[in-house]
Amino acid sequence: MNTELTQQIKFLLEIDALKDILRQSYLSSSGRRENSAEHSWHVALMAVLLSNYANTAIDVLKVVKMLLIHDIVEIDAGDAYMYDQAAQDAKAEREQAAAARLFTMLPPAQAQELHTLWQEYEQRQTPEARFGAALDRLMPLLHNYHTQGRSWQEHGIHSTQVYACNAHIADGAQALWDYARELIEHAVKNGFLAE
Amino acid sequence: MNTELTQQIKFLLEIDALKDILRQSYLSSSGRRENSAEHSWHVALMAVLLSNYANTAIDVLKVVKMLLIHDIVEIDAGDAYMYDQAAQDAKAEREQAAAARLFTMLPPAQAQELHTLWQEYEQRQTPEARFGAALDRLMPLLHNYHTQGRSWQEHGIHSTQVYACNAHIADGAQALWDYARELIEHAVKNGFLAE
Repeated sequence: MNTELTQQIKFLLEIDALKDILRQSYLSSSGRRENSAEHSWHVALMAVLLSNYANTAIDVLKVVKMLLIHDIVEIDAGDAYMYDQAAQDAKAEREQAAAARLFTMLPPAQAQELHTLWQEYEQRQTPEARFGAALDRLMPLLHNYHTQGRSWQEHGIHSTQVYACNAHIADGAQALWDYARELIEHAVKNGFLAE
Repeated sequence: MNTELTQQIKFLLEIDALKDILRQSYLSSSGRRENSAEHSWHVALMAVLLSNYANTAIDVLKVVKMLLIHDIVEIDAGDAYMYDQAAQDAKAEREQAAAARLFTMLPPAQAQELHTLWQEYEQRQTPEARFGAALDRLMPLLHNYHTQGRSWQEHGIHSTQVYACNAHIADGAQALWDYARELIEHAVKNGFLAE
């Protein structure tokens, strides 16, 4: 058997576990909680559909790759709720360790390429990373709005937190932040989100 | 509000429903059945990782786009089990109608681009479509093998069916078909799959 291929297949089977990592978002269709694998599909396709809203020209394949791998570290580190600052602060080290373990399952050149891409996404300094991160924020906003703020209400989230946590959407795509702000305003007006 | 963006967001919320379409594959991790959204994530990432096994040079972004959208017609048409020929034959018309309904939710130029891409995938005549379709076959084989043939056994599938249904992996990626054949042989030897 081909050794490189065997490594790649082993990695692909390992990341099956992302399908069991539950997020705080509720699906607009069935009302169950979303898992991180199906979320990754959704934001990757979102990048394809909305790429022309990026503030600057982006390499779409690079963004899509980033979004396909952005959450796999949760297999070891778990999902930290975006509005839980303590969980956010605590997760960085666990996620770095997870990235090291998972990506090194791949053949060396590919391991390095994807690990570097994941780091770039995390650092949010390049147009692709900023745009990818914008979509990763916009999608849960949409889920929250279209489930009448279910997840916001369960966690007692206020609009100031929602504005603060999502403002960096503007760094990747100003037009999407304009849309998101209208959504947040409507959510407050409709009582989905506390002022 | 931006009309095009509103259409795109509506489409993105509509396809949330793909997360509720269950396939016959069991996850290697938790043993539950897989849904078509998380499957789409898995094969899209597989395309990124295994692109150099394609028989001819491929446009990776094109394959990834195909795989991100390849199953969305199941939202209306349901998932037809790959070894159920009657279901496969019956689904074509329903899937065409589903594609027409879903893609026309998007702004016209994008609707046409993605609808055409979906048709190209279905027809399996281009290198990208063949490679994408190869991955769509290889992943369930891996799931079956790594759950000791659970789905094969539930449906009374024999190795001749598995060889016949998966042989077109060779059209997209001969090296992956070589790997798949070894897997099928092992599955028969280990009693995961009836001869």
